[in-house]
Amino acid sequence: MTDNSGKPLLEEYQLTTSEIREMWEVLSPDERAEAFELLGRDAAQEFFLTLSANERTDMIFRLPEGEKKLWLRLLPPDDAADVIQKSPEEMHDLLLSLLDSNTQTEVKALLSYQQDEAGGLMNPRFARIRPDVTADEAIRYLRLQAQASLGGIYYVFVLDEEQHLLGVVSFQDIFRASPEKKIRDIMKTDVVTVSENEDQEAVSRLFAQYKFLAVPVVDSKNRIKGIVTADDILRAVQDEASEDIQKMGGTAALERPYMEIGFLNLLKKRAVWLVVLFFGEMLTASAMANFEKEIARAVVLALFVPLIISSGGNTGSQATTLIIRAMALGEVKLKDWWKIIYREFGIGLGLGCILGLIGFLRILIWQYFFHLYGPHYLAIAAAVSLSLIGVVMLGTLAGSMLPFILKRLNLDPASASAPFVATLVDVSGIVIYFTVSALILKGTLL
Amino acid sequence: MTDNSGKPLLEEYQLTTSEIREMWEVLSPDERAEAFELLGRDAAQEFFLTLSANERTDMIFRLPEGEKKLWLRLLPPDDAADVIQKSPEEMHDLLLSLLDSNTQTEVKALLSYQQDEAGGLMNPRFARIRPDVTADEAIRYLRLQAQASLGGIYYVFVLDEEQHLLGVVSFQDIFRASPEKKIRDIMKTDVVTVSENEDQEAVSRLFAQYKFLAVPVVDSKNRIKGIVTADDILRAVQDEASEDIQKMGGTAALERPYMEIGFLNLLKKRAVWLVVLFFGEMLTASAMANFEKEIARAVVLALFVPLIISSGGNTGSQATTLIIRAMALGEVKLKDWWKIIYREFGIGLGLGCILGLIGFLRILIWQYFFHLYGPHYLAIAAAVSLSLIGVVMLGTLAGSMLPFILKRLNLDPASASAPFVATLVDVSGIVIYFTVSALILKGTLL
Repeated sequence: MTDNSGKPLLEEYQLTTSEIREMWEVLSPDERAEAFELLGRDAAQEFFLTLSANERTDMIFRLPEGEKKLWLRLLPPDDAADVIQKSPEEMHDLLLSLLDSNTQTEVKALLSYQQDEAGGLMNPRFARIRPDVTADEAIRYLRLQAQASLGGIYYVFVLDEEQHLLGVVSFQDIFRASPEKKIRDIMKTDVVTVSENEDQEAVSRLFAQYKFLAVPVVDSKNRIKGIVTADDILRAVQDEASEDIQKMGGTAALERPYMEIGFLNLLKKRAVWLVVLFFGEMLTASAMANFEKEIARAVVLALFVPLIISSGGNTGSQATTLIIRAMALGEVKLKDWWKIIYREFGIGLGLGCILGLIGFLRILIWQYFFHLYGPHYLAIAAAVSLSLIGVVMLGTLAGSMLPFILKRLNLDPASASAPFVATLVDVSGIVIYFTVSALILKGTLL
Repeated sequence: MTDNSGKPLLEEYQLTTSEIREMWEVLSPDERAEAFELLGRDAAQEFFLTLSANERTDMIFRLPEGEKKLWLRLLPPDDAADVIQKSPEEMHDLLLSLLDSNTQTEVKALLSYQQDEAGGLMNPRFARIRPDVTADEAIRYLRLQAQASLGGIYYVFVLDEEQHLLGVVSFQDIFRASPEKKIRDIMKTDVVTVSENEDQEAVSRLFAQYKFLAVPVVDSKNRIKGIVTADDILRAVQDEASEDIQKMGGTAALERPYMEIGFLNLLKKRAVWLVVLFFGEMLTASAMANFEKEIARAVVLALFVPLIISSGGNTGSQATTLIIRAMALGEVKLKDWWKIIYREFGIGLGLGCILGLIGFLRILIWQYFFHLYGPHYLAIAAAVSLSLIGVVMLGTLAGSMLPFILKRLNLDPASASAPFVATLVDVSGIVIYFTVSALILKGTLL
């Protein structure tokens, strides 16, 4: 199958799909294309369909010109649209021209949607039927429809002549009905639909809630445009979670698997946020500089700075992580902010008291054994544990409210990453700590 | 429908499913049960099927004794098993006894699996057929099977008499085939299966990779036990991602939606990890105490402690988050650790140099304008920026390797949470910083 006549041994050797699957990860893009050419036709088709959109795009660009058409035409319209979307802008027209004219129209329609909205996820091909046929006629008719590619049948959608969605009937319902029964009488009319521009996160919540296998996408006039299936949404859910997790960890979303992304690209995506956070953290040096005299007079105060600011950072990380996830799953909505404040205030107070108490005891115990903190150790212990309560409460409230503020500003709440909240709390934690200490230790140590 | 005769108005009022869905979130468990009883029978059935396993369990326990059976029997065996699993241990037998004897056997078999393995996710009911029937016979036979509940038909599994899996044929294939063709001749024999004890994370990777709608679960002798469908796995994927995200944010996995979990339970789940981290962070106070003399002599050094340790914490958070997610998605495997070390070493060096340079310039610029750092400002700038390089590299390597170590010890890599890594790096960051400073500033400031 390869035209590289210098490798007769390889040329005769036919790879199996499981062989190629095993070695896939360790191959470079060029080797992948080469290995792919060593598959038999059937195996190659099967394997090609299991690749991700990124991998398919890479592959199509590395295949000989004459073969591109063949492979692109193998894909259902929604997958073909994905490949085109992942290709450089200037290749779009060329790739579109390789499709047959029907599919071209379908793919063009799909390309007009954002990739992360229902319209961009849907398959424009699905099983359809009129309401007045009988169950028996329906089965005969669906057998005819199946000759054309349907991309899998789960539900059959009942439409009038203008493509308005009248109802849905599952395959099982048609099969179960007595042969003479009209579709109209067995269809469900209370159909859950999504609009073309619905965000994929909202669509995935519907799937998770109702355990659907497919949901119809309709326009503003209730005309059906296509269906989104559970397998499409599964990838979307994985991608959304990855993006959120990466942002929450303080990186720009990678958009590609960790092992596939280039070194410089990875460095850039990580450096950007780190530099932003670093500029934020520089404020800690300025905050500390304001208290330089206090530190000089009571060096012992400096010893607890990392403990206090990191406690605020840790509680802030917790709170922001929990709220961002609950928002992504639709468990918490924008209007719930006051419920969350109320709740997190209590949680913050509780956590602050626990850590404050432990901190207080720690200083007393160390003082008893090592006599590290001088005659004013009780005042120091009080300053540390009161600061802990304040910083932990601040961390909890900042961490839980920041996602709301970002969402209100139409930004992604996941950008309220743990490191971002920690940085915010670090700076204010220093101010809280030295202010509390100044109040308590005035006249003794300070 | 309610027997509370004191509320005639409510009794006559029938809720619709969309009304109950809207108010659901704000209702207490008791109010939910009450509202549920106000639904018409059909609407109630439809609504009940959209509830999560937790909600169904709550509901069944709050319904009158006589109705429990009705609602439990409405569920397919895998969902009934979920409800029983979420109920208190002592109720299991009672609930089982409410099912018909067939379903009882099926549910008992399901309960013997872990909830997060393929056996615990699967539906034991699916469409099956013998290899030697024709396409026409198959359709007639499947119409009969559909009378019994199949829980949705997507693929038909071809079995021999001992339930060994011979192949799979999609509905579309049967429909498309000429009526006289044997199933044996249209079925696919290269079936991707999962074993009963396969972890749900591995199963979900299969789904995401191949875009399946259903995967058969087989025992060690290739006998089919049930099927896992994409809608089941979608919930599992959401739950796995939530669990990972919560652990990565430094909380124990909540296991319930944020708004549903009780206050004390939430406080406990958060306090446990915070206290562990707090004990870790106490080491920062001890580390700082070791350098108390240096701080007393050069207070200026203390000003940069928060900046340096938080930079290590932030890079560590990034690295651990990226690696944990890549592991969860199967992009990075245990054996890849040396590739990751190699890569992260480069990334860490790059990031360290970037932040080190910014830190160096920051001190020079502030010195120029504010004269804060005295005559030895160049040495201080050198100490800070060298420490930054070291701490950032340490953060990157610790963050990326910790998930591997946890996985090697058969612990959940997601426990290498951002706060955990940050704590680790904070302590060592202090040691690095003061050691580097001591070397550079010896004879001048120190």
